Amino acid sequence: MNFTRREFAHLVGAGIALASEESAHALQQDTGRRLNYGIVGLGRISMGQFMPGVKISNRAKITALVSGHRDKALKVAAQYGVAEKNIYNYENYDSIADNKDIDAVYIALPNNMHAEYTIRAAKAGKHVLCEKPMATGVGDCQAMIDACERANKKLMIAYRCQYEPTNLRAIEMIRDGKLGTVELIESTFGFNIKKGEWRLNKKMAGGGPLMDVGIYCLNACRYLTGEEPVAVSGYSSVIDHDGRFDQVDENLVWTLKFPSGILASCSTTYGANSNGWYRVHGSKGNLHVEPAFNYDGLRIRAEVEGQPPIDQTTNDPSPHQFQREADYFAQCVFDDKQPKTSGEEGLRDMKLITAIYKSCGKA
Amino acid sequence: MNFTRREFAHLVGAGIALASEESAHALQQDTGRRLNYGIVGLGRISMGQFMPGVKISNRAKITALVSGHRDKALKVAAQYGVAEKNIYNYENYDSIADNKDIDAVYIALPNNMHAEYTIRAAKAGKHVLCEKPMATGVGDCQAMIDACERANKKLMIAYRCQYEPTNLRAIEMIRDGKLGTVELIESTFGFNIKKGEWRLNKKMAGGGPLMDVGIYCLNACRYLTGEEPVAVSGYSSVIDHDGRFDQVDENLVWTLKFPSGILASCSTTYGANSNGWYRVHGSKGNLHVEPAFNYDGLRIRAEVEGQPPIDQTTNDPSPHQFQREADYFAQCVFDDKQPKTSGEEGLRDMKLITAIYKSCGKA
Repeated sequence: MNFTRREFAHLVGAGIALASEESAHALQQDTGRRLNYGIVGLGRISMGQFMPGVKISNRAKITALVSGHRDKALKVAAQYGVAEKNIYNYENYDSIADNKDIDAVYIALPNNMHAEYTIRAAKAGKHVLCEKPMATGVGDCQAMIDACERANKKLMIAYRCQYEPTNLRAIEMIRDGKLGTVELIESTFGFNIKKGEWRLNKKMAGGGPLMDVGIYCLNACRYLTGEEPVAVSGYSSVIDHDGRFDQVDENLVWTLKFPSGILASCSTTYGANSNGWYRVHGSKGNLHVEPAFNYDGLRIRAEVEGQPPIDQTTNDPSPHQFQREADYFAQCVFDDKQPKTSGEEGLRDMKLITAIYKSCGKA
Repeated sequence: MNFTRREFAHLVGAGIALASEESAHALQQDTGRRLNYGIVGLGRISMGQFMPGVKISNRAKITALVSGHRDKALKVAAQYGVAEKNIYNYENYDSIADNKDIDAVYIALPNNMHAEYTIRAAKAGKHVLCEKPMATGVGDCQAMIDACERANKKLMIAYRCQYEPTNLRAIEMIRDGKLGTVELIESTFGFNIKKGEWRLNKKMAGGGPLMDVGIYCLNACRYLTGEEPVAVSGYSSVIDHDGRFDQVDENLVWTLKFPSGILASCSTTYGANSNGWYRVHGSKGNLHVEPAFNYDGLRIRAEVEGQPPIDQTTNDPSPHQFQREADYFAQCVFDDKQPKTSGEEGLRDMKLITAIYKSCGKA
């Protein structure tokens, strides 16, 4: 997660972290080599984003599906040209070990299943790209890292914003000193959740909006500063006693202190719709990205001393962000390189989330 | 500060808290009765805002000046038609007691002088309109309240945003339930301070940016919710070791928890320019006021379920906010009514500021 300037230049050079209006896709060379993904969990993010992203990629391919709903899986398989023999369920999942059509799995299950399905994939000799949050607790994160290390397989957490042009441009502006000394960051992300979502089940979700959407703000504070917080503090609350928040919190605010002295104030909610956004205040200028975490339409605004103001909406339609993510992980596997958003990166956020909940009195 | 709906309607009815594009001035009736103000301290806010505000008022008048610089005072007196006999300095200030041309004083001195000059004014039998922050500590605030009560004189803290149309419109929307249940508030205010400002002197200022500009955010969280925080937490830091922050902090972030469960995340800085703004997230809509605390050009944006979006910049040029404030206090004196932003209101903020500093380890 800590980009050095050289790493950043490398990413940009590779066309992966392309901080421009052109899509990574358009610039890619088809090397002929593709990473074969098995998709674990056919929910909204898999079906609506990741799979369409892989479809427009020439470094990745969908070759297998893992689902509890065989009928659904058969339809999706037909759509993506996946062989029927490569459809698995959660019982026979371990037998992917015997299937050479699968190099890696993309795990998009409820949070509490991330650890088990990552560890089983590693044991089956597959690389793992796992959705955020990495798991529901620190112990599971460490077990996932250990399992992948033992199996000598790559593990990446799907922090797609760290591969997305507008966010990379924000990072670049900060690293290049355009804002001068960074002093403050603010960030918020929330939505008005519907009754019945698995995200409201404490066991499945591990927590409330911080686990699900607040994690974007937390992760952003870390990639924008390139620092690890030395102190965290938070408050959580439930206002709407309509049955949605019997298990998890509704609202959460928190503050972070970084070693350099940069301070961040953040908030997240399941009780109100809020764009995901951040603002960075530096001695020489300000940066405002809103929306910052959406699948497309990201907008960056900046006022920097002695320069014309920036106000640009990235022309990078969905599912390009997911294509980039899938491609980046493929390249890590091909190059035997640790992903920038490795298991360690997910673990760091989980430790901070745990500390924030502890501060809220929810440990 | 806790507006009941009836109080709010009363304010609006009086044309003082007018939440519309028309200026309070235009609608005022000249009753012939005016409150005669003595101006204590001829700095930027007095000269640039308050005095021009009174000049366009027909309920208030400037009849005396208190300044350490007689030459400056003579020039200003000529400009405002103040009799030379009504020019005072800090030594003979107490003799305003004998001057029937003075009903009230407006105190715009460095923060640490607010208490002394309020108490001396009360003893001299004058009403007091005092700039924010009320003082540099809780004890002084209480002493100011006590002195004014003993003298049976009104005391108002110049929280001008509580008399300003855009902020009142935001409050009205919230009280009317337009946003549904309020869940989260965010607010920031900061500027890149120049070396040599008295605000950087701990003794004179009482603290860093929280005392000076962060107080707008803190006060806004209270007037927007109409609640008093039950818990506060903060971090402060100094990043720029360029001599400016040898005595006061540079950055401060804090969170507030309100009895209803509303949470707020706020920040302030002397190290970067930031618009003063707030955002309110409710179950049915969002409100964003930016700038929210400037002397003019305030802009309100709102997205409310089932209604067309609002994006309106208030046509209420400076110094109308100060006119409103001066007029409102005049009316309180005429009606023998406790100002909405009384000494108690200033004291509440000072108690919270003290608690936030304590949480930052600066008590």
